[in-house]
Amino acid sequence: MAQESNHTNEPQANIGVVGLAAMGASLARNLAHHGNTVAVFNRSHARTETLMREHGDEGAFVPADTLEEFVASLTRPRTAIIMVKAGAPTDAMIDALADLMEPGDIIVDAGNAYYEDTIRREKAIRARGLHFVGCGVSGGEEGALKGPSMMPGGTEESWKTLGPIFRQIAAQAEGEPCVTHIGTDGAGHFVKMVHNGIEYSDMQLISESYDLLRRGLGMSADELADVFAAWNEGDLNSYLIEITADILRHKDAKTGKPFVDVVVDRAGMKGTGTWTVQTALSLGVPVTGIGEAVFARGLSSQAGLRAEARDKALAGPEPAAVLAPIAADPQARAAFVEDVRQALYASKIVAYAQGFNEIEQAAAEHGWDIDLGAVAKIWRGGCIIRARFLNRIADAYAGGTKPGSLLFDPFFKAAVEGAQDSWRRVVARAAQAGVPVPVFASSLAYYDGLRSRRLPAALIQAQRDYFGAHTYGRVDEPGVFHTLWAEEGREEIKQS
Amino acid sequence: MAQESNHTNEPQANIGVVGLAAMGASLARNLAHHGNTVAVFNRSHARTETLMREHGDEGAFVPADTLEEFVASLTRPRTAIIMVKAGAPTDAMIDALADLMEPGDIIVDAGNAYYEDTIRREKAIRARGLHFVGCGVSGGEEGALKGPSMMPGGTEESWKTLGPIFRQIAAQAEGEPCVTHIGTDGAGHFVKMVHNGIEYSDMQLISESYDLLRRGLGMSADELADVFAAWNEGDLNSYLIEITADILRHKDAKTGKPFVDVVVDRAGMKGTGTWTVQTALSLGVPVTGIGEAVFARGLSSQAGLRAEARDKALAGPEPAAVLAPIAADPQARAAFVEDVRQALYASKIVAYAQGFNEIEQAAAEHGWDIDLGAVAKIWRGGCIIRARFLNRIADAYAGGTKPGSLLFDPFFKAAVEGAQDSWRRVVARAAQAGVPVPVFASSLAYYDGLRSRRLPAALIQAQRDYFGAHTYGRVDEPGVFHTLWAEEGREEIKQS
Repeated sequence: MAQESNHTNEPQANIGVVGLAAMGASLARNLAHHGNTVAVFNRSHARTETLMREHGDEGAFVPADTLEEFVASLTRPRTAIIMVKAGAPTDAMIDALADLMEPGDIIVDAGNAYYEDTIRREKAIRARGLHFVGCGVSGGEEGALKGPSMMPGGTEESWKTLGPIFRQIAAQAEGEPCVTHIGTDGAGHFVKMVHNGIEYSDMQLISESYDLLRRGLGMSADELADVFAAWNEGDLNSYLIEITADILRHKDAKTGKPFVDVVVDRAGMKGTGTWTVQTALSLGVPVTGIGEAVFARGLSSQAGLRAEARDKALAGPEPAAVLAPIAADPQARAAFVEDVRQALYASKIVAYAQGFNEIEQAAAEHGWDIDLGAVAKIWRGGCIIRARFLNRIADAYAGGTKPGSLLFDPFFKAAVEGAQDSWRRVVARAAQAGVPVPVFASSLAYYDGLRSRRLPAALIQAQRDYFGAHTYGRVDEPGVFHTLWAEEGREEIKQS
Repeated sequence: MAQESNHTNEPQANIGVVGLAAMGASLARNLAHHGNTVAVFNRSHARTETLMREHGDEGAFVPADTLEEFVASLTRPRTAIIMVKAGAPTDAMIDALADLMEPGDIIVDAGNAYYEDTIRREKAIRARGLHFVGCGVSGGEEGALKGPSMMPGGTEESWKTLGPIFRQIAAQAEGEPCVTHIGTDGAGHFVKMVHNGIEYSDMQLISESYDLLRRGLGMSADELADVFAAWNEGDLNSYLIEITADILRHKDAKTGKPFVDVVVDRAGMKGTGTWTVQTALSLGVPVTGIGEAVFARGLSSQAGLRAEARDKALAGPEPAAVLAPIAADPQARAAFVEDVRQALYASKIVAYAQGFNEIEQAAAEHGWDIDLGAVAKIWRGGCIIRARFLNRIADAYAGGTKPGSLLFDPFFKAAVEGAQDSWRRVVARAAQAGVPVPVFASSLAYYDGLRSRRLPAALIQAQRDYFGAHTYGRVDEPGVFHTLWAEEGREEIKQS
């Protein structure tokens, strides 16, 4: 069905893709597989040729030599998906397309843009009468090809055109497409950013569990592969738990050692986790689990600092020595494994509760009408954090219910309450054994902070009044007060 | 000595202050007290009149009706300190002054500017041949009047003029003025930002100690005032510990209750803590203690969420019930108080280690030549985090020594190693008792992470390679590798 090139001026393609690197090419093929006629363009023509040569027979493609030709090949409203490098190249391509398009046409940015850039771009493109849609796409190259989880923002009007197409190409979970119109302008990229932040905390929680059982109980990689495989059958069922079992079972071909033991223990990152925490800080929403997960990757990558730490041999307990009594007793050992599973589950619930709070707060500030239940549903397939557990989150927000925190939803409240004894034991034992569990500990502190009727923040507020006259409120009457600390602590009413 | 107004065109003042609200007026008086002739100007003239009426006899002031008159009253190089609202008002005043000044003149911004704004402003003003100095000033209104800790950036040349004046008006600690030239352009405001971040963690650590002893051991505010007063005699000797004892002893006049019990438990913040964490995230430096402290304030201020949590009554242990055996036994009780003191000390060392790492990393990125020992010294007086402990930090960096972390310095290494058994018990017991200690726990996790020879980041890196082909390094040979997970786990060399 492939066509040589679009040398006539007759528009034929109902959608187009600009940028044919791994993600863009996969998305174009996915579109073609579902019966769309797909215009394709890449700045350097070689990629276009490769796509046509290797996959041109998979569906209806309309390759273009120039951007002008690409736009001319699109039927109206012209719909172009951009998948080029973030930053300046994206801005340049948006401008170039907008110059060639006409009112009513649609530009989709499917890259990992920061949502504030998307808000800025949408505003500029809207002023020109076109639609701009920032669309989060999760699932990597394979997801883009076989069905990603898609998080589009932009106008309702653009969604009328995009909806039917995106529903075809998105992943399917329990019969439903993993795509929904998230909200206007930057809402889609915002939700994708938080998705990635949650992914950081999910991965760190798995690592803390692994570390505690491996170094603490002395379990082998194979034994742990079995543990994760078993966990994958229950509440924790998810893609990340599943691949963890695969990874732990995998042997390095060269050395025969467990693969995980030959990998350098420095975790990289590309920025979306960092954005999630920085944005939460600006919004005033605690995302302690994601924050600790990002910092843990940061620490792991400080190679020089860690090398110096090894030389200095900072003292501390030997995990296996501290936990030897548990490791030696099969029953205690099994109980501890179950404790860790519960700690992972409870901490995971906290991380999602915090992430959803971040989305809610941003929605309130930006006027986005985001259906949190629908967000949970479209994360059930195609993306990295896909998990059975997301059905429960969808239920928590179903029918317009809006708990202020997932932790207040009856299902999750019971889950955390049921897990907490285990969770507390795990945090306590990790502290004693010298195994770092920053996200387990931080999530527990958040839970205990949230449920405290009184917090010692009162003391902080008193300190702030003492040294900086920052004032305070009283628990027994409205108003703003200041104590004249230098004058025998006389209280002044600043505002009643 | 006050003069009516500067109606001649003869310059008389060797320095001037623009913006005469609390901080600016105090700084102007401090300058005058030390023999400077101080030009003063405020946009609304009433403040100038108030200053002259109430304090005009304290030294040599030259009040100005207009900015033109203000500039004309300054001797060369004209030196003007701006203390106006951050953001647009500061930009407007800088521009207005620059228009009236001449090459070689000096504009000092003594407000709490974000260091990137300072870098931008310094560049713009330098292009006009003038000097721009962003100067962090800590110590509040009283510090500004009686001697603040001062952190100026800007050129070496501007420091020749400012140094002798700032050394007069800064706080004195052990005979040394609490001011040094931090580095070029935004270095001063950067260091002031981190100072504030550390202040957040110091305050949170005190609050966690208080909470654990109050709710956990059931100690009264008066008993705790004694505890903090005693702590102030040892390693923890500091302004914040001292005022905590004062606050805890203070009784509310209206109710007779401990003052801390009538204060609303929502801690406010003004942004510098948030900046410290956001900037550390961009720099890739973990500042987990400061991060948790900022998030803890955020949680305390989420009034709606906390009210809903109270209604839902999230289950958890009763702290006093869990710790009752310790509370009931005088010896165990005293031992636990000492454990908490050690936990506070160790966590505080971690927070400073992280904060100094943030300064070092920024210095490397911005080409600032920052003497970290000198930074520790100028924080010994005038500012909120002033503490005896800072002498030890100064020692750690003395004579060009550069430990990659304060935790590697022999003194602090021994201190943390000596404290760690206590620290671990405190984190473990807090987890069991249900008292949130996010910064204690997070700091301990950082310590254990730093001293771990292997981190489970290897598993994270394997996961990233599995789902996103992000590649990994091998522990046994250089290069960049990728495993073809779908093809029986065959390993590919991406770069050797």
